[in-house]
Amino acid sequence: MVTKNQIKLIKSLHQKKYRKVHQLFIAEGYKVIQELLASDFTLESLYCTETLDFSVDDNRMVKVSNDDMKKMSALSSTSNCLAVFHCGKELALSFDNLVVALDDVRDPGNLGTIIRLCDWFGIKHLICSSETVDIYNPKVVQATMGSITRVNVVYGDLLELLSSRGGGIPVFGTFMNGRNIYQEKLPTRGVIVMGNEANGISPIIESHVDQRLTIPRFGDLQQTESLNVAMATSIILSEFKRSSL
Amino acid sequence: MVTKNQIKLIKSLHQKKYRKVHQLFIAEGYKVIQELLASDFTLESLYCTETLDFSVDDNRMVKVSNDDMKKMSALSSTSNCLAVFHCGKELALSFDNLVVALDDVRDPGNLGTIIRLCDWFGIKHLICSSETVDIYNPKVVQATMGSITRVNVVYGDLLELLSSRGGGIPVFGTFMNGRNIYQEKLPTRGVIVMGNEANGISPIIESHVDQRLTIPRFGDLQQTESLNVAMATSIILSEFKRSSL
Repeated sequence: MVTKNQIKLIKSLHQKKYRKVHQLFIAEGYKVIQELLASDFTLESLYCTETLDFSVDDNRMVKVSNDDMKKMSALSSTSNCLAVFHCGKELALSFDNLVVALDDVRDPGNLGTIIRLCDWFGIKHLICSSETVDIYNPKVVQATMGSITRVNVVYGDLLELLSSRGGGIPVFGTFMNGRNIYQEKLPTRGVIVMGNEANGISPIIESHVDQRLTIPRFGDLQQTESLNVAMATSIILSEFKRSSL
Repeated sequence: MVTKNQIKLIKSLHQKKYRKVHQLFIAEGYKVIQELLASDFTLESLYCTETLDFSVDDNRMVKVSNDDMKKMSALSSTSNCLAVFHCGKELALSFDNLVVALDDVRDPGNLGTIIRLCDWFGIKHLICSSETVDIYNPKVVQATMGSITRVNVVYGDLLELLSSRGGGIPVFGTFMNGRNIYQEKLPTRGVIVMGNEANGISPIIESHVDQRLTIPRFGDLQQTESLNVAMATSIILSEFKRSSL
């Protein structure tokens, strides 16, 4: 049975400031929780509306009503399970392979998708500007589908993080007027900066970009809307990896 | 001023069956409405919470309160404008260029994103199985960001639609055990089938696939979750188009 105080704590974790205070976050849905349980993340407590085959101590698994689950959930369609985990530690960055850097990506679905793409393409480190949406936002956790356990996400001042990369590591950015990504020989090391949904890459970061890339469009040049940042990331990472084959 | 009956009609358009009865759909947000107004779609009525620079007849633009807008909106965060348009007509399919076919894609965000990708990559025709989410679902309209006006989307029995393609047009599908998409010479004509989010391509459609493709994964082979259908579509379309350069 879940207490009012527990529900209150869990609801507070919908907000970044309380996640920071408690160093806890919530994950919803069977698959994501299973992946987190199998990872280095530490479980605090688990709430289920029915009996599920999680292998956790009985005293950490709490049966709850559908009504209570709805109160706790941060998602529009609630799942049959919700878990509270301790936030992980950021690991040291390594620039030995490709690194992705996000310049104020604000949409939780986009960040979750980009983490999943990094996982798919074997990219171990993701740098996020301080204004990028919080990785422990419940919608981000949901959208990663478990990939959150396999990608090291580091937040901070983007310029400082970029300048820690050392010599010889190029910074790539996507712009309307860059070089055709399909015709470039792309390296196996480098930082790929992806910009904010509305404003793209900020001028300060742009001034540190060594190579400007463009994804050519094939639709009506006058009319087509730009690609969403997650779609652009999938195409760019695909090209970098193909180029390395 | 908006009447109770108008609000009732608009709310009914959140549901597919009433969109079919009335042959109307709703679009929310300035950009999407502007694109629809500039296209062949016919406006029925327009509701705004503030004065906006749409060039429509005064008698078609209705000022509404924020409360009424919330009642009418199908989105979790309401916009300052909502328009009702007449559903468009499906155009005749042409297989002269690449065509994308969706085998029961259910998520509105995925369909909207795929329509946007078709637009970006200059793909004019999109085939959807009858079970694929309705193009006039408000969340699909929203996610297309206006690309709905530039891609011809045709619904029907997928097998029948595929068999209308004529001889010499190959059907491509993505599977775990297909040929490496980065190493194939891909044609400029063909149908690219994308499967359902949970189950992939159905067995009946699979039996009509001429060439099985795979997007190679670079992350930990044991653990990485599969790519979401919209991300996979972006990578596959990018490869087909690059291959044609």
